[in-house]
Amino acid sequence: MRKVAIVGTGHSRFGVRYDVSLPELAYEAVKEALKEAGVEPKDVELSVVGNAGGWSSEPLPAVVVNEYCGLSGKPTFRVEAACATGSAALKAAHDAIAAGEADLALVVGVEKMNESPTPTVVEFIGRAGNYFWEFENFGLTFPGYYALYATSYMFTYGAREEDLCQAAVKNHYYASMNPKAHFPRRISVEDCMKSRYVAWPIKLLDSSPITDGAAAVVLASEEVARKLTDSPVWIEAIGAASDTSNISKRNTYLSLPAAREAALMAYKKAKIDPESPAKALDLAEVHDCFTIAEVLAYEDLGFARRGEGYKLLKEGQTYIGGVIPVNLSGGLKAKGHPIGATGVSMAVEIARQLLGRTEEGRRAAIRNGRGLAHNVGGTGHYAYVTIYSLSKPR
Amino acid sequence: MRKVAIVGTGHSRFGVRYDVSLPELAYEAVKEALKEAGVEPKDVELSVVGNAGGWSSEPLPAVVVNEYCGLSGKPTFRVEAACATGSAALKAAHDAIAAGEADLALVVGVEKMNESPTPTVVEFIGRAGNYFWEFENFGLTFPGYYALYATSYMFTYGAREEDLCQAAVKNHYYASMNPKAHFPRRISVEDCMKSRYVAWPIKLLDSSPITDGAAAVVLASEEVARKLTDSPVWIEAIGAASDTSNISKRNTYLSLPAAREAALMAYKKAKIDPESPAKALDLAEVHDCFTIAEVLAYEDLGFARRGEGYKLLKEGQTYIGGVIPVNLSGGLKAKGHPIGATGVSMAVEIARQLLGRTEEGRRAAIRNGRGLAHNVGGTGHYAYVTIYSLSKPR
Repeated sequence: MRKVAIVGTGHSRFGVRYDVSLPELAYEAVKEALKEAGVEPKDVELSVVGNAGGWSSEPLPAVVVNEYCGLSGKPTFRVEAACATGSAALKAAHDAIAAGEADLALVVGVEKMNESPTPTVVEFIGRAGNYFWEFENFGLTFPGYYALYATSYMFTYGAREEDLCQAAVKNHYYASMNPKAHFPRRISVEDCMKSRYVAWPIKLLDSSPITDGAAAVVLASEEVARKLTDSPVWIEAIGAASDTSNISKRNTYLSLPAAREAALMAYKKAKIDPESPAKALDLAEVHDCFTIAEVLAYEDLGFARRGEGYKLLKEGQTYIGGVIPVNLSGGLKAKGHPIGATGVSMAVEIARQLLGRTEEGRRAAIRNGRGLAHNVGGTGHYAYVTIYSLSKPR
Repeated sequence: MRKVAIVGTGHSRFGVRYDVSLPELAYEAVKEALKEAGVEPKDVELSVVGNAGGWSSEPLPAVVVNEYCGLSGKPTFRVEAACATGSAALKAAHDAIAAGEADLALVVGVEKMNESPTPTVVEFIGRAGNYFWEFENFGLTFPGYYALYATSYMFTYGAREEDLCQAAVKNHYYASMNPKAHFPRRISVEDCMKSRYVAWPIKLLDSSPITDGAAAVVLASEEVARKLTDSPVWIEAIGAASDTSNISKRNTYLSLPAAREAALMAYKKAKIDPESPAKALDLAEVHDCFTIAEVLAYEDLGFARRGEGYKLLKEGQTYIGGVIPVNLSGGLKAKGHPIGATGVSMAVEIARQLLGRTEEGRRAAIRNGRGLAHNVGGTGHYAYVTIYSLSKPR
């Protein structure tokens, strides 16, 4: 298998972006990524567009985005895997390069969620599971899905709402230093506790926002990467898994088994000890669509033992200086979660962190030269765990 | 690059399928493909779902389809490239195997178009180009797109409406022998000429129908394919290209340049002479969403010189026994065009033709052991040309 590296990264400002159309938003990220890679649209051999769609008036967005970005003519398709869309798009482009079908590929994740026709955003997100049985018949909304996990976790391990709020506090703290974040401001546990309930015990400030945004990476084969840059960031391993569409068919609400499976697959490929992965990594971006999701991520990824994920937060172990810094970008919670962009945004963040190119105050210490992205669709309906490395994978 | 083969094929009945849900429809094809491959769901390492969506109540269908097919747990994502969705999904799975990321993958294309919420099917298809400028502002519907090509072609080369109708007559003739076809019955040129105009000069019987259907293939690496079957059908080459989303930005309406580009890419990879590709092939399935599209395909693929595609039809050269038989399945026109399924259905048809497993009367003579699928999204917004072979590619 040929090795694949990130050679350029781009990121739009996340937020409520009525000021731009979908392709304009995508271009903010694409322009930056192409420039950083030192390539032009004509050099791109494949364009993979990550977009969940449904709320856009352009439901078939790949060519619309490509035309605006000067990429008309290039092989292209759209990838969707609910909230893991960005990581799935990155995998598809990675595989094309690894297979020798392309030497230079662009991955752009983009979502305009605030420009939502019918169905509404909340209804659409509710369809991320099994619409027919669980949304339409039982009225289960997306925050409701994660509320099942939160209550199960709190009941089993004795975690409190305040403990979950700590994830939001941390992520807003780091977002306050990220100029691209949707909510670049600090909050306190009190703010979180006082915010209104969305689906008990999940409150507004436990929840990621409805965000517009785009992120892009340029991927290259080893040969092309060597020509373009002295600092490629390698895609060392991709693990992926899925789960039942009906969450009523799951056996546990204390874990997202697909995320666990994807992590084990990625660790195996990267030869990382699944008993102590934090020792091999410098940082992680995890899928904190709700605060409980970040806690479950710690445990599914093996950063904490079962039932002890919330204690990592209590002890500040996922701040810089702790056992592993998590979501220094601000995470989905405070950077924002434009669905199709999120997985690509994670790739951008990890690459920039590994290269020391993020803002001071939210910059990880790089010792191992390795970072991890954990991107989930639904409640583990889809899961992708991707490991990035400064060293060329063996 | 590792070689990739089709080791199992499955195909649902195409038609108006109110009798099944989306996952049930997918399962009709998946069950058959897994059985033919001699594998079980547990053996599948990647499931790629081709679905354009928009009209389904399950807008995020991959996990819903997978759960019903017993594939929960497997890495999965959805691919969309408008009407070329099926071929793009097949490419993504092909690349994963070629890269060594999987040894056995399932590709399922599925679409339920008759179960259409808002926007309506016609509106949704109209959004396959550039919704904002061309559909909303200029009211250009999808048949209207192809009508621009038909009038340009007729004016330039002197082809008549009757000449275009010949494509429908041929494809209905072959569909009459395909038990999976939506419209398995013959029509005459007179029937076509008497049918009502949809967008002059395109008539109802120049147009592919609104169809529900599914198709599936099991793909395997060489090592696994050798274990499973004595008759693998290899994916020899995939060519892909795209074009502007605004067709007002195109320079010609006498060709789909993306299809031409995709064909040249595929021919180059397969070492097929682009001056006489029909000599190297036993049959082709081409994207006849409208009769004019089949004529343009002949020319873009190099089966006929510019301006002479319609003469192939007049002379019966694309029937069995002619220079190259085209759309022996009945094509999109008469077999039906369930968008996400179409490219996968083409793969199923070519594989079965190469192995002599189609019904008598519509069975191609196999001399070269090679077939071609030409799958277009929009009016060449996306194009995929895939070459299948009984001989292992060099």
